[in-house]
Amino acid sequence: MFAPLAKPSNNTSTAAPCIDQIPILTRVIPMSVLIVGSTALDSIKTPRTRKPRLLGGSASHAALAASLFAPVRLVGVVGTDFPRRYLQLYRRHRIDLEGLQIRDGKTFHWSGQYEVNMDHRRTLRTELGVFETFSPDLPPAYRHTPWVLLANIAPSLQIHVLNQMTRPRFVAADTMDLWLNIARDDLNALIPRLDLFVLNESEAQQLTRKTNVFQAAQSLHRLGPRYVIIKKGQHGAVLSGPRGLFLAPAYPLPSVVDPTGAGDSFLGGLMGCLAQARGPVESNLRRAVICGTAVASFCCEGFGLSRTLRLRRPQLEQRVRELRHLTRF
Amino acid sequence: MFAPLAKPSNNTSTAAPCIDQIPILTRVIPMSVLIVGSTALDSIKTPRTRKPRLLGGSASHAALAASLFAPVRLVGVVGTDFPRRYLQLYRRHRIDLEGLQIRDGKTFHWSGQYEVNMDHRRTLRTELGVFETFSPDLPPAYRHTPWVLLANIAPSLQIHVLNQMTRPRFVAADTMDLWLNIARDDLNALIPRLDLFVLNESEAQQLTRKTNVFQAAQSLHRLGPRYVIIKKGQHGAVLSGPRGLFLAPAYPLPSVVDPTGAGDSFLGGLMGCLAQARGPVESNLRRAVICGTAVASFCCEGFGLSRTLRLRRPQLEQRVRELRHLTRF
Repeated sequence: MFAPLAKPSNNTSTAAPCIDQIPILTRVIPMSVLIVGSTALDSIKTPRTRKPRLLGGSASHAALAASLFAPVRLVGVVGTDFPRRYLQLYRRHRIDLEGLQIRDGKTFHWSGQYEVNMDHRRTLRTELGVFETFSPDLPPAYRHTPWVLLANIAPSLQIHVLNQMTRPRFVAADTMDLWLNIARDDLNALIPRLDLFVLNESEAQQLTRKTNVFQAAQSLHRLGPRYVIIKKGQHGAVLSGPRGLFLAPAYPLPSVVDPTGAGDSFLGGLMGCLAQARGPVESNLRRAVICGTAVASFCCEGFGLSRTLRLRRPQLEQRVRELRHLTRF
Repeated sequence: MFAPLAKPSNNTSTAAPCIDQIPILTRVIPMSVLIVGSTALDSIKTPRTRKPRLLGGSASHAALAASLFAPVRLVGVVGTDFPRRYLQLYRRHRIDLEGLQIRDGKTFHWSGQYEVNMDHRRTLRTELGVFETFSPDLPPAYRHTPWVLLANIAPSLQIHVLNQMTRPRFVAADTMDLWLNIARDDLNALIPRLDLFVLNESEAQQLTRKTNVFQAAQSLHRLGPRYVIIKKGQHGAVLSGPRGLFLAPAYPLPSVVDPTGAGDSFLGGLMGCLAQARGPVESNLRRAVICGTAVASFCCEGFGLSRTLRLRRPQLEQRVRELRHLTRF
């Protein structure tokens, strides 16, 4: 049984193409970001604490981060056990839920455990639930969304979403080592269709067979994407594009409560920031990477989405200024 | 038998105090940097190449790096087997060798091997030779040198040098995991006497028992040093001081030929840059870290000191400008 969460409203179904047609110089309303990925319940264990059934998943983290900057359209699936308060929480953050399916069955549930230094995590259990048969079919109103974020999910589903889009302005995708191991062909079909491909250092090395991160970035460009970001966790991120490299630091946190979703928050913040900015992507991308970095740092300061949800734009802007000061010489 | 390499010249013995007395605003001649550390022959094996008996050692790398910016006074010991051409090479780079002892016996010889990704190295053999009984006794002319760099060497020898100095303006020291394991008491006695303590991430974690690099830096400040730098190899370095943190990237190298001595070059370049700069240390330290970063990147581009020796200031300044562009947003 497929039950879209809300009927398409007239507003929603026409908003995206209209905004897209406004000449660039008069554009003041941030454009929407479509985000597809996992919408899950996370049970997280750290050396000090255990938190069961938090709101999680790549799409949840990315959507909440992006919603700080721009309207978000969420594409995902949850089961009938999905707490009502989590739906309300999405809505409070202006996240359009027309693309969120509620299906008979259980919500995707992930359990993981972090080691003492929070650098390594171990998956304890994965229960796919309704995710097992998820097909991200888009409401018509979503198909003209200019900014598309394919958060971490099976690449076949990322492709399925992309196939339904009408000339998106910018498409970014994240992935994970699992898909490199079990869905390489799908990933190979996806990558050439991306404007921005984001992955972490070990994934980039695995995919390109280059141990050097800058060589890996060059190999990834040759697969198609104009922009590549290689995430290095606490060591920051490297953006590679036509204007060369940008070396972004991570925000210096004296302690990390829970890094779950930091990478998704990074990319969500980045895409939200791009969507609300005027002018060409090339001119805005460095600042967008830093916005993503700042959101990710807040994400790490609380369990699940607890800190991100309390985040306001002035706090975020303050951290962006700090990052500028921390790197200036 | 102790044979200083050259008699103290009148010029050398009076130069340091004179320069030190010139009012800061009229100071145009860079002040000298005294560097003590190992002067060695390195046999290096990488996955592709094997290079025997190159000029190496912490003091050699630091001295050649610092000599790009300021006059250097070298304190070390070599055996009678030390190739004459290496002495000439020091001299060509304006390195004062009055403090370099030549003793009967063999020069300290280190052999090491790097793994495929150049991240991990394995010591194959260490032959201490004349280093075993080395006592770094300073020529009188050296004792007023304003800038003191205690490159990696036993902390008891670093302390011995410091005990002979007359009110140095700024003292920096590097160390390595070996001394944390076998000479902790000496290290504990040294650290409170330093202005700047430099060590790599794993050493900082081992010394402070803090896995978080920013917490580790705070613990290190509590031991005395006003400035702390934690080196993170290819991920850059963190400077911590009274004005907060500075996050320095590493220069993005698409391939590393030989990273031996990169950390020593970093600190040598940093100290040379500080010694030639006008004004307070606090105002110059960020740029000095970047100068050190740039020199270290050249060091990695050749075996041993081969690339550093061909380096000229304009190339270095170009890389400093690139690093600024690579981090600006």
